[in-house]
Amino acid sequence: MKKIINHPSQVVDEMLKGMLYAHSDFLEGIDETRVIIEKDKQPTVGLVSGGGSGHEPAHAGFVGEGMLRAAVLGEMFTSPTPDQILEAIKASDTGHGVLLIVKNYTGDVMNFDMAKEMAEMEDIQVASVLVDDDIAVEDSTYTAGKRGVAGTVLVHKILGHFAHEGMALNDLKSLGDALVTDIHTLGVALSGATVPEVGKPGFHLGESEMEYGVGIHGEPGYRRDTLKPSREIAKELTGKLMSEIMTKKTKKIGLLVNGLGATPLQELYVFYNDVIEELAKYDVEIVFNKIGDFMTSIDMTGLSLTVIRLDDDKRTVALEAPVGVLNW
Amino acid sequence: MKKIINHPSQVVDEMLKGMLYAHSDFLEGIDETRVIIEKDKQPTVGLVSGGGSGHEPAHAGFVGEGMLRAAVLGEMFTSPTPDQILEAIKASDTGHGVLLIVKNYTGDVMNFDMAKEMAEMEDIQVASVLVDDDIAVEDSTYTAGKRGVAGTVLVHKILGHFAHEGMALNDLKSLGDALVTDIHTLGVALSGATVPEVGKPGFHLGESEMEYGVGIHGEPGYRRDTLKPSREIAKELTGKLMSEIMTKKTKKIGLLVNGLGATPLQELYVFYNDVIEELAKYDVEIVFNKIGDFMTSIDMTGLSLTVIRLDDDKRTVALEAPVGVLNW
Repeated sequence: MKKIINHPSQVVDEMLKGMLYAHSDFLEGIDETRVIIEKDKQPTVGLVSGGGSGHEPAHAGFVGEGMLRAAVLGEMFTSPTPDQILEAIKASDTGHGVLLIVKNYTGDVMNFDMAKEMAEMEDIQVASVLVDDDIAVEDSTYTAGKRGVAGTVLVHKILGHFAHEGMALNDLKSLGDALVTDIHTLGVALSGATVPEVGKPGFHLGESEMEYGVGIHGEPGYRRDTLKPSREIAKELTGKLMSEIMTKKTKKIGLLVNGLGATPLQELYVFYNDVIEELAKYDVEIVFNKIGDFMTSIDMTGLSLTVIRLDDDKRTVALEAPVGVLNW
Repeated sequence: MKKIINHPSQVVDEMLKGMLYAHSDFLEGIDETRVIIEKDKQPTVGLVSGGGSGHEPAHAGFVGEGMLRAAVLGEMFTSPTPDQILEAIKASDTGHGVLLIVKNYTGDVMNFDMAKEMAEMEDIQVASVLVDDDIAVEDSTYTAGKRGVAGTVLVHKILGHFAHEGMALNDLKSLGDALVTDIHTLGVALSGATVPEVGKPGFHLGESEMEYGVGIHGEPGYRRDTLKPSREIAKELTGKLMSEIMTKKTKKIGLLVNGLGATPLQELYVFYNDVIEELAKYDVEIVFNKIGDFMTSIDMTGLSLTVIRLDDDKRTVALEAPVGVLNW
């Protein structure tokens, strides 16, 4: 394992300290909790997200005006505890309630639910939206149902915009529940991620091998294959994602090409080019795109493609609105 | 070589097509030139930069309001031709002249100079600023003098701001010439970059080996060593950079921690934390920071640290000003 770190057990805390050193103009930490929160809290519903570390810039890179109020960081690839999440909820509430955005992993679901119950006992209104955008497989290593992956960031952005505009908690919850049914993601990996405390990649792929449908913690996908050209990968991913999204007679879509941590930006653009050429087959308009690293898997090479249904222009307005965060 | 591409010879053109598909709301290409340029050109001095591809998001990711007017893309790790650069100059001029920002490599210097002369023969005012921020070595593989690396992006940002504010070409040139003497960078690599058409890494480092001072095309650095903890790397880089910058009795600095392409963001923050703790030894105030991938070397693992002298607050204002580009 070659990493620029000190001790493997200190990566999360030192990363967090680095973030707070760098961005104390608008972010602060809550002692002993690994919560990163906006300093300036508007009197609106606070959005709280988080999960295991290792997906940077998710989620701390999306804390700030117009997106998340707070991010809760677990150990690498491990859910934060209910106590941590509770502190994030308490610190995020301005009397308008808190919306939790949770990726669908058994540990996260359990811990965020428990924190929600604990917060409600302290008379804080809490709702939650569960993101399960990964269409690769059902019931994976850490998941009942589908996994929550890069599409989560689009949920942060859209709901963050409406929260910033003053939308009430119940309305945000309804909007979010509908939204997550219109976001679909598929990823491919060329190599596994190395968790610092493990010291070697979570799975191994041969020199000319790739895997379709891998999860962001290295969970198995749906097929191993020889490494294919970008255009064939684009064809397969686009085909599967479009057949999901076209069940609703979609006319407008947005695209997110997400690097998994060690993929050069040039490859993401080569792939995007192939996706666009593939989409010429479909009668849809692409009204939004985002290309870069948003939901990574430490140092995994590979990428994911997310397709979001944007027939409702309000979603597009929300995606395009300026924000005061680090990594959108 | 495992990459998400089609044919190695097509990477630059397909990446460019992908960028133009994605960002045609504010960027356009000039046919047959690999030039990416702002659609909406203000009546100000146009800043043109570029160089070999493989450093994404540099330089195309910095084209837009308040930074570059145009970026010229060469083949991978290869300077663009004088003809390409000339087209960028011509398309960037609004009658107020064009400022070239050139990284110090023999090929780039020669080709940008030739394009400058050709443009002057067409009565376009052109000036250029040469960036040579890498303090690792003098006279490297492709360079006489020091190399131009990640600090170049700070030059784009500061001069881009003043150009946007309407500063005249001669003043931008003077300001730029002074600025580049106040920017110093050092990098470390844990692995070499693989140029697609070469198919294997440009250099090899053993499983527990690193190299100090490597250039962004894999040019040799100043020492190979066993892989050190982040805090020792921070100590060495900070020490060398601060002894350069403190020759001017500097009181305020800015920091840029730049990933080289395949380095997880979490490591950049761990390293930033160590840099800040190291800087406690010095009587300086850190008034600006930036952490992420700005000037990469395709898929190299490693990072660079740039220190810029910011005793003149106008530089800090310029760095902090909002911009309309993709990757700042």
